[in-house]
Amino acid sequence: MSESHGRRRHALRAHLRERELDAMLITDLLNIRYLTGFTGSNAALVVHAGDEPGAERRTVFCTDGRYTEQAAGQVPDLETVVERSSAPALAERLGADAAAHRRTGFESHHVTVDGHEALTSAAGEAELVRAPQLVETLRLVKDADELAALHRACDVGDRALADLVAAGGLRAGRTEREVARDLESRMQDYGASGPSFDTIIASGANSAVPHHRPDDTVLAEGDFVKMDFGAHLDGYNSDMTRTVVLGAPAAWQREIYDLVLAAQRAGCEAVRSGADVREVDSVARKVIEDAGHGEHFVHGLGHGIGLEVHEAPSLSQRGDGTLDAGMAVTVEPGVYLPGHGGVRIEDTLVVRSGAAEPLTMTTKELVSV
Amino acid sequence: MSESHGRRRHALRAHLRERELDAMLITDLLNIRYLTGFTGSNAALVVHAGDEPGAERRTVFCTDGRYTEQAAGQVPDLETVVERSSAPALAERLGADAAAHRRTGFESHHVTVDGHEALTSAAGEAELVRAPQLVETLRLVKDADELAALHRACDVGDRALADLVAAGGLRAGRTEREVARDLESRMQDYGASGPSFDTIIASGANSAVPHHRPDDTVLAEGDFVKMDFGAHLDGYNSDMTRTVVLGAPAAWQREIYDLVLAAQRAGCEAVRSGADVREVDSVARKVIEDAGHGEHFVHGLGHGIGLEVHEAPSLSQRGDGTLDAGMAVTVEPGVYLPGHGGVRIEDTLVVRSGAAEPLTMTTKELVSV
Repeated sequence: MSESHGRRRHALRAHLRERELDAMLITDLLNIRYLTGFTGSNAALVVHAGDEPGAERRTVFCTDGRYTEQAAGQVPDLETVVERSSAPALAERLGADAAAHRRTGFESHHVTVDGHEALTSAAGEAELVRAPQLVETLRLVKDADELAALHRACDVGDRALADLVAAGGLRAGRTEREVARDLESRMQDYGASGPSFDTIIASGANSAVPHHRPDDTVLAEGDFVKMDFGAHLDGYNSDMTRTVVLGAPAAWQREIYDLVLAAQRAGCEAVRSGADVREVDSVARKVIEDAGHGEHFVHGLGHGIGLEVHEAPSLSQRGDGTLDAGMAVTVEPGVYLPGHGGVRIEDTLVVRSGAAEPLTMTTKELVSV
Repeated sequence: MSESHGRRRHALRAHLRERELDAMLITDLLNIRYLTGFTGSNAALVVHAGDEPGAERRTVFCTDGRYTEQAAGQVPDLETVVERSSAPALAERLGADAAAHRRTGFESHHVTVDGHEALTSAAGEAELVRAPQLVETLRLVKDADELAALHRACDVGDRALADLVAAGGLRAGRTEREVARDLESRMQDYGASGPSFDTIIASGANSAVPHHRPDDTVLAEGDFVKMDFGAHLDGYNSDMTRTVVLGAPAAWQREIYDLVLAAQRAGCEAVRSGADVREVDSVARKVIEDAGHGEHFVHGLGHGIGLEVHEAPSLSQRGDGTLDAGMAVTVEPGVYLPGHGGVRIEDTLVVRSGAAEPLTMTTKELVSV
């Protein structure tokens, strides 16, 4: 993905010039991965603002001796410094050429108070200024490589769930924990390095707990089984929830299922470029409120997804801003009846100027297994 | 473990008085778990310095609405505030009684620059002062509950490896990835919530890479197979490395194995209360250096272990201080011959006034499978 990384650094340089920064010191490892492709556990990066042809050649990457070989493979195009204290080492270089680094941004939402002291001391005359969430802002709209990675991760989730059902893995008598491990194992079979987050398998009354952790509860005939899970693949994450019934659904189950499905479809339809994130939440929420279950939908409608499972934008009343084409978001309304049971249905979607493109393709019709 | 948590808060209060702090605002979730038992993903805690009988009653815990029920179960003995912005909410309470909070410590090694701004703004007249690593210092010496948890985690690792070998799971033709998943699955069978860290299975030439990630390399007759893994259980971690040979060991394999084992035993013998951490590293390192392989032992000898896989103290030349009875540490020398193969042998041990107590019990004799 080396070309993408170069394009992302190019885009970052434009942002730096807008903010009148000479350079940016990046220390968040996911942001470094985004900008370089490096996957190790210790790194720092300085990107300069200039738009002259040689600006890219001033980019400096730093990692420690454990990763020398890995850096040569993953970051062959950048000058690489090998130092254990990677961020202070780069800050020191800024200080050594302070005249060219009057204002260097740092990730104030990520650097700790003690870390900041070490950086300012190392930077000497070069001033470090707060520049929170700068790379995260770039990460909002996914490029082609990222969308392809999200596609692969979502595909793994779809296939694993289909296999689980086909193999009879959802049946009365199994525990939630067993189902969770089975599903995670199937995602790994399809190439996931692991689950994107702790898999939620919630059966019967547990399905009414939004983030229930799978335990030794035994699945029983007539239960809702709510499954919220994702695959971590090439650094990217998928996120999908499906709720099924073991056996024939009771009337109350079909009722709340249909309601959540209607809300989820309305939410998906509202997802398009230009839409206000609070409004997208409101559209789906209104469907549930109008049916008298507003108090049983206790969380936001969805969230951005990419290198992190939860990233901006937030599709909720606490969110802010509008959607742009190329963002990836989840839409996941739920209705939870405490002590009784609950339903959540969730897709991962790519925002387009027209209808959003779903990446999770498993049927949303009510399935009896 | 509610009694332990109370004792730990009591110990923290003494530290606060030593540093002339009125209180401490704790925001690191592992430290909060250590002091309260709470395992959710959002919390903050204020502990007051006083040693009067009512001091403990002034402790305030904060989490958000998702965890109301969980907090009632895990933290029943503490006043609980329910707020989404947990740390600023408690900072605001400090400010509301600023006269009693002239100097409140905060975790400057954990709070970000932006987070600190939000806290100081919320705290108003109550001054927040840096108090890095305070709870981490308490965590150095493990109490009985913690040692029991470490025991259980190490036991799971021992049993999973024994089962893997007994089931023929280590054999030519399998990939490293398959072995890693098999071993992790067996740890889960024994109750681990997951691996403590990404399991290392490194065969043949890969065994010479200290932190090789398991890939599709196929295990072959004559290979070293280096396995570095641990079980995460009740919040605590185990860490053990064993290296075996598929088939009969070659002379060079036996030679470096015996060397690493001698170094590992020397290191374990040097682990006792009062020992200087650098000296413990030196004792083991000298065995390897004397055999002419000093340059092939490219990392420190070991590290503390507990709620984190890697925590203080560091048994290395970069470390500092002496060991105390009740600390838990790893001893893990290695010799890596690039392109050829490598051996690491690692135990988790509890420091005692006499001989250290090993928690990982799998044989360290050279095993041919």
